[in-house]
Amino acid sequence: MTPDNITLMLLSLGILLGAARTLGELAQRFHQPAVVGELLAGVLLGPTVLGTIAPALNLFLFPPNGPNAIALDAISNLAIVLFLMVAGIEVDLSTIWKQGRLGLKVGITSVVIPFGLTFLTAWIFPQIFGKQIEVNQLVFALFIATAISISALPIIAKTLMDMDLYRSELGMVVVSAAIFNDIVGWIVFAVVLGLMGGASTEGNHIVLTIFLTLGFAGTMLTLGRWLIDKVLPFVQAYTRWPGGELSFALVLALLGASFTEWIGIHAIFGAFLVGAAIGDSSHLREHTRVIIDKFVSFIFAPLFFASIGLKINFMTHFDFSLVLTVLMVACIFKLIGGTFGARWGKMSARESLAVGFAMVSVGAMGIIIGLLALEYRIINQRLFVALVVMAIVTSMISGPAMRLILSPVKSWQLKDALFSKLFIRELKALSRRDVINEMVQIVCREFSLDNNELERIVWEREKAMSTGIGKGVALPHARVEGLAYPLVAVGISDTGIDFDAPDGKPANIIFLVLTPDSAPESQLNIVSEIARLFRNQPILQSTLKTRTFTDFLALIKSQSMPKQT
Amino acid sequence: MTPDNITLMLLSLGILLGAARTLGELAQRFHQPAVVGELLAGVLLGPTVLGTIAPALNLFLFPPNGPNAIALDAISNLAIVLFLMVAGIEVDLSTIWKQGRLGLKVGITSVVIPFGLTFLTAWIFPQIFGKQIEVNQLVFALFIATAISISALPIIAKTLMDMDLYRSELGMVVVSAAIFNDIVGWIVFAVVLGLMGGASTEGNHIVLTIFLTLGFAGTMLTLGRWLIDKVLPFVQAYTRWPGGELSFALVLALLGASFTEWIGIHAIFGAFLVGAAIGDSSHLREHTRVIIDKFVSFIFAPLFFASIGLKINFMTHFDFSLVLTVLMVACIFKLIGGTFGARWGKMSARESLAVGFAMVSVGAMGIIIGLLALEYRIINQRLFVALVVMAIVTSMISGPAMRLILSPVKSWQLKDALFSKLFIRELKALSRRDVINEMVQIVCREFSLDNNELERIVWEREKAMSTGIGKGVALPHARVEGLAYPLVAVGISDTGIDFDAPDGKPANIIFLVLTPDSAPESQLNIVSEIARLFRNQPILQSTLKTRTFTDFLALIKSQSMPKQT
Repeated sequence: MTPDNITLMLLSLGILLGAARTLGELAQRFHQPAVVGELLAGVLLGPTVLGTIAPALNLFLFPPNGPNAIALDAISNLAIVLFLMVAGIEVDLSTIWKQGRLGLKVGITSVVIPFGLTFLTAWIFPQIFGKQIEVNQLVFALFIATAISISALPIIAKTLMDMDLYRSELGMVVVSAAIFNDIVGWIVFAVVLGLMGGASTEGNHIVLTIFLTLGFAGTMLTLGRWLIDKVLPFVQAYTRWPGGELSFALVLALLGASFTEWIGIHAIFGAFLVGAAIGDSSHLREHTRVIIDKFVSFIFAPLFFASIGLKINFMTHFDFSLVLTVLMVACIFKLIGGTFGARWGKMSARESLAVGFAMVSVGAMGIIIGLLALEYRIINQRLFVALVVMAIVTSMISGPAMRLILSPVKSWQLKDALFSKLFIRELKALSRRDVINEMVQIVCREFSLDNNELERIVWEREKAMSTGIGKGVALPHARVEGLAYPLVAVGISDTGIDFDAPDGKPANIIFLVLTPDSAPESQLNIVSEIARLFRNQPILQSTLKTRTFTDFLALIKSQSMPKQT
Repeated sequence: MTPDNITLMLLSLGILLGAARTLGELAQRFHQPAVVGELLAGVLLGPTVLGTIAPALNLFLFPPNGPNAIALDAISNLAIVLFLMVAGIEVDLSTIWKQGRLGLKVGITSVVIPFGLTFLTAWIFPQIFGKQIEVNQLVFALFIATAISISALPIIAKTLMDMDLYRSELGMVVVSAAIFNDIVGWIVFAVVLGLMGGASTEGNHIVLTIFLTLGFAGTMLTLGRWLIDKVLPFVQAYTRWPGGELSFALVLALLGASFTEWIGIHAIFGAFLVGAAIGDSSHLREHTRVIIDKFVSFIFAPLFFASIGLKINFMTHFDFSLVLTVLMVACIFKLIGGTFGARWGKMSARESLAVGFAMVSVGAMGIIIGLLALEYRIINQRLFVALVVMAIVTSMISGPAMRLILSPVKSWQLKDALFSKLFIRELKALSRRDVINEMVQIVCREFSLDNNELERIVWEREKAMSTGIGKGVALPHARVEGLAYPLVAVGISDTGIDFDAPDGKPANIIFLVLTPDSAPESQLNIVSEIARLFRNQPILQSTLKTRTFTDFLALIKSQSMPKQT
């Protein structure tokens, strides 16, 4: 690569990553999966938008041929291998066994029903999916069935966590079904690719590829898994921590990916299976998992998904009736599959429907499978665009539909309840009573609440038992009738105010926690989150150093550890 | 890229990373910098060894042309950009100011003296460095002077930490001098590259490049640094944690790298400056720093250093007299520079000599500069090999020489004192006295010590005050005359033994800590490390589940957090 090539590579990677992450964040702000924004970044920078408005710039940044095209291709191939490895690590095989029959029932029906129905539809009416004549009918129908019946484990898990249902029975059933779904889906897809490779050569080749695929999957999930579990303690004990474990995982994933690419199915299948085998080891340390997960999810995955948008003009290849067909087939068949499984497992009608909608989302995995099919020329660009739209739309409706059906109590977190206008950097008041009055007044002014009434209930609670919890923190709180969502006012006093704390220390940070009467548990959640945050002394010092609400919010967000999944 | 290209890319990356990390670990086992092993991996897999033994395999794995060569080139270019970004993050500019005059004196002399002396030598006798006729004499002399006077901050920091001198005055002087050295070295090198680019075109171009280089460096370290510090809290407050901060840092580094590559100096200069500006922000969170640092240091850096060995046959281009010349010049001039600066700053002769030897190591940075010079055809392959050997040898002698001069008391850690033959998975004894006897007996048998004497001193200490520290842990200990290094025997008792602990709980894990009489502080170090480790309850449960010494060692290593730098 010449210096000019390198300049361009770094520039295009910087722009691509920047755009993908910015739009990914924006998508999440609107409660959509990040992958929606990441794909959109590619669509904006690719032929669809930039290529139409400023074709020269588009060609300069992302040339279709030459060393820079190869470099970007190499990096996005590496990115997808690492992404699938992380997806594999997230898959916890033991969840399926723990969940037992119910999970297995939903798992099986949510694969078999959409797979079977889509396969039949695509076999009998291949033209409605726009099958090209030169493509083998069996391969095509099998592929369509796989692309539609696979599920988006990361998106499903995220939706369940947002609704605080991840650890519930419904959550565990859905997750274990999605894991089962993922593994079966990938194995079937690998077999489809084997069939396809075989179609061009002799019959022996097909049998060999399928045999190698199933053999590799079986070996990785039994012997490989066992071996990794045995070897990991040696790696941890006799190499640098966490570097040894980190490179051990990556080297295995690269070699596994290379092996599956070599036997004629795609590299990502190997990476996924290696990831699943590693993730299942009880010896894999959380610290290593976090490093791999964060670096891959926030750097490599956005680069990969954005690069998809660069490959295709989504506008010219958008075929409305095809998009609608694929979308309808996916939604209906998947909804039937999931709902039926849950009913069969004796869940209530309402919960079964929620399970059905959870299993509807196709997400990133569907896009990846579609991309491979496009590269292997099983499908054309129009069908690929339809699959991408289907994958995204199903992921976007899945969460809201579940919310509508279950109407779960939203689990509020501290960061949802903080507002810049309720941040009082320097309290004027010097006594407990005055502080409460000062803070209540500001809340009432900003949110048009009844001043006197609120002051009375907060003070009554405070009188009953002091809310100074020690270590410089006080937490006056009240449940307020008619409030739609929790409000937390934050007052900082550099001098400190006596809140009669058990450790006798004056309070420097006062959180006034007001929660809706209708969501009684939100008070306990928020109060205990604050108590947990300020258990360690250093954060108090850091808080006293903050000057603005942004500084304060940054501190709170980067101190609270993400929920464990 | 075709499926065959992808298979090969993943295979070669897997092999390269695996070999680099394995040999890097091995190098560290022999107390050598990891980069020594990583380079060696490339030498083994490249033309030097594999290319000689099995040329066909070497050409297959690492083809010199075609898509795979471009892919590897792209990935190693990306790797070096990220590595320099991490190097920049590690640089803490404020250290220089804090250290004040002494650090600055050493910093200046350790740049100016070797730079000046080497420049003069190379200017007057260019032939002894094997200068080619077509290379500009000024550019050549400037380059040689830069490559030799740069220092290896990561290696110096690691050596100081190993000797427990990082936080000492000597340590901080050396580190701040090395930081100063790094920044000046890179800026001078950027100017050299600018001069070189200019040599081929008009004079205006040189001035412009130098102006842009100094302008960019100045802007990044002042305005850029200030701006990043202002923006980071917004990123933390309003994006996902830690993903926002992570991608913010990487996007800036990629764009900065692209910019400097564009103005005609190398990409890594921009990445380094962006890293320095980010690392200096008080808002950069440790968690983000760790994720970037570990992923880059253990994945990208080994890939990069190994890939250097693939480029060149180190055997055929090894010129003994040239290697010796470069090595002598580097060692002598750098030793003079560092030692003189320290003496000037009124340090003792012994300490000054230690500072001098610390500044001798050239390490990774010298190799990177050499590689660039090779790419820009300032030097030939023979001189490049000589520079690599010089960089490695200076890094290898620096630490041992400092140890010899200062003869610091080795600071023993728990993991150095654990031995598989002193791991007793199931203690037979049931009382305090019997446990001590049982453990002492095993230690005496394995290390040929006097049984009765040892039993007496351990028990006397135990009688004086019980060593049961609670939470299921007991720490009987003694200082032993004539012991060369600490020994820690570990005994596990599932039933538990009464050690008269303050919390009344029986001890399930007994550490018998025996330390040399000659290193009195090692007892306190090890005992407090154990107490710190077992402060949290879960690790006791995990320990009781371990079956073998390896499991136990893996647990201890992955639980103890690395020392903060």
